Amino acid sequence: MPVLVVGSTAFDTVETPFGRRERCLGGSATYFSLAAQRFTEVKMVSVVGEDFPDEHRVLLTDQGIDIEGLETRPGKTFSWSGKYSADMNSRETLDVQLNTFGDFAPKLPDSYKSSPFTFLAHGAPSTQASVLDQIEGSTFAVADTMDLWIDNAKADLLTLLNRIDGLILNDEEAKMLTGESNLIRAGRKVLELGPKLVIIKKGEHGSFLFSNYFQYALPAYPTDTVVDPTGAGDSFAGGFMGFLAECDSISLWNMKRAMAYGTVCASLNVEDFGVENLAGMTRACVDRRYQELIQFVSLQ
Amino acid sequence: MPVLVVGSTAFDTVETPFGRRERCLGGSATYFSLAAQRFTEVKMVSVVGEDFPDEHRVLLTDQGIDIEGLETRPGKTFSWSGKYSADMNSRETLDVQLNTFGDFAPKLPDSYKSSPFTFLAHGAPSTQASVLDQIEGSTFAVADTMDLWIDNAKADLLTLLNRIDGLILNDEEAKMLTGESNLIRAGRKVLELGPKLVIIKKGEHGSFLFSNYFQYALPAYPTDTVVDPTGAGDSFAGGFMGFLAECDSISLWNMKRAMAYGTVCASLNVEDFGVENLAGMTRACVDRRYQELIQFVSLQ
Repeated sequence: MPVLVVGSTAFDTVETPFGRRERCLGGSATYFSLAAQRFTEVKMVSVVGEDFPDEHRVLLTDQGIDIEGLETRPGKTFSWSGKYSADMNSRETLDVQLNTFGDFAPKLPDSYKSSPFTFLAHGAPSTQASVLDQIEGSTFAVADTMDLWIDNAKADLLTLLNRIDGLILNDEEAKMLTGESNLIRAGRKVLELGPKLVIIKKGEHGSFLFSNYFQYALPAYPTDTVVDPTGAGDSFAGGFMGFLAECDSISLWNMKRAMAYGTVCASLNVEDFGVENLAGMTRACVDRRYQELIQFVSLQ
Repeated sequence: MPVLVVGSTAFDTVETPFGRRERCLGGSATYFSLAAQRFTEVKMVSVVGEDFPDEHRVLLTDQGIDIEGLETRPGKTFSWSGKYSADMNSRETLDVQLNTFGDFAPKLPDSYKSSPFTFLAHGAPSTQASVLDQIEGSTFAVADTMDLWIDNAKADLLTLLNRIDGLILNDEEAKMLTGESNLIRAGRKVLELGPKLVIIKKGEHGSFLFSNYFQYALPAYPTDTVVDPTGAGDSFAGGFMGFLAECDSISLWNMKRAMAYGTVCASLNVEDFGVENLAGMTRACVDRRYQELIQFVSLQ
């Protein structure tokens, strides 16, 4: 079944110990779509400015991504510039220009309104909620959030949490949202806020899955060369949602496997700059790495 | 088969957000022995002063631990005092009195000299090596190390690494020893220094096992209440070595299970102050938690 994603499209300028890349294609919707597309049909809603080059549109459509929902507005495309620390565990934002993304009001094309799977990527909780308002019928909705919204739009975020099925956030965000320093407690407390499913991403330490019926921990793929961590979280979400949408049911077993596919997509993504690896990866390559991950974490 | 452990016995004064305990029984050999004893016979070599009370000796012997190698010397017992941060992720040492442990020269009783499994706990690499010199016949030797020795006795440590089968260290120590910030690279680099088996402990993030033939990652048990992290590493080592010694071969499958048993012992240990939980735990309780851990990390 198709997956709808609503989020940002951006030009990223990134500096890591491995080098520097200027104005690469980036953004949460882009990373998510490229990862999810390996598993299922993807419909993308985002906004760019008049400076967005055709070659990027061609890259996305050549990958089979439906960009009918990619709006072009007067002005420039969202741009971000950042520098990673030597150990890649922290990054400094050098410049952010929201541009056309600043007043992004996502509008779903008619062909997107029936959406069995929806991922609400990078955006204000009220913007994310406006997407749910436009969907006709039921959807399995998962959202991403970040420190900015926990700080500045907590009431909107709490309202949103009661409308979605799942929330994906990182360890620091989970601690910030719940006030708990223990991640197990934090995960359970996020569940009490509404979503039936909570995934806490811990970067190189893997991820946790919480529901009211079970908890699951998955280590990260043992990547020994991280070139550019940008987009890891959105690639994870793309692999997770893409695989789930490909399955015939949202079972415990499928959710665990979806986490492993998310982990694989994130690991492939961080081994090169920008979307290079995601755009080049085949399903066979994803499946090969999935088997390696399973072996790495399997007790048997 | 029996396990020999050589390390410290101490009085610990500990302050955590859950309270304060003064002069508890502690030390690496104590934590290790109490954990390993759930699986197999344990022979302990350590040193205490004349102030070491009989009740602690009784506690150890009542648990079935062989303390023929626990030497009493003129002077006082090693004592340590520390305070943990609110999130338990760091600790400050307030006071250390090495006392009789300061010039500890372990001497194996004759009945200990044939030792199929040996754990070299807290101690200088040269002291650890002196234990190996006293063992008759072959032994499966695993050592612990710490930042102090990597800094101050690196040459001795590198010599020791060529004489042992396994090294257990934490993430910061692995990075320090190898100069690698990526833990996967760090683990592989420690293997090049001699041991056939390297375990990197990551606290709440679990542990990695490295050998030349495979790598394995195991998340930590999902403990939601850490009361006192003191001795977690030694309890892990005790569960690991104790279970391995109980098995009939050192296979990949047994090593992975031994890591899970080490994880279980560490998780039980940190849920109360001092050795309270280790001294009270039954094998049935260990096995129950082992099954919970397996379920927590199992994809199936």
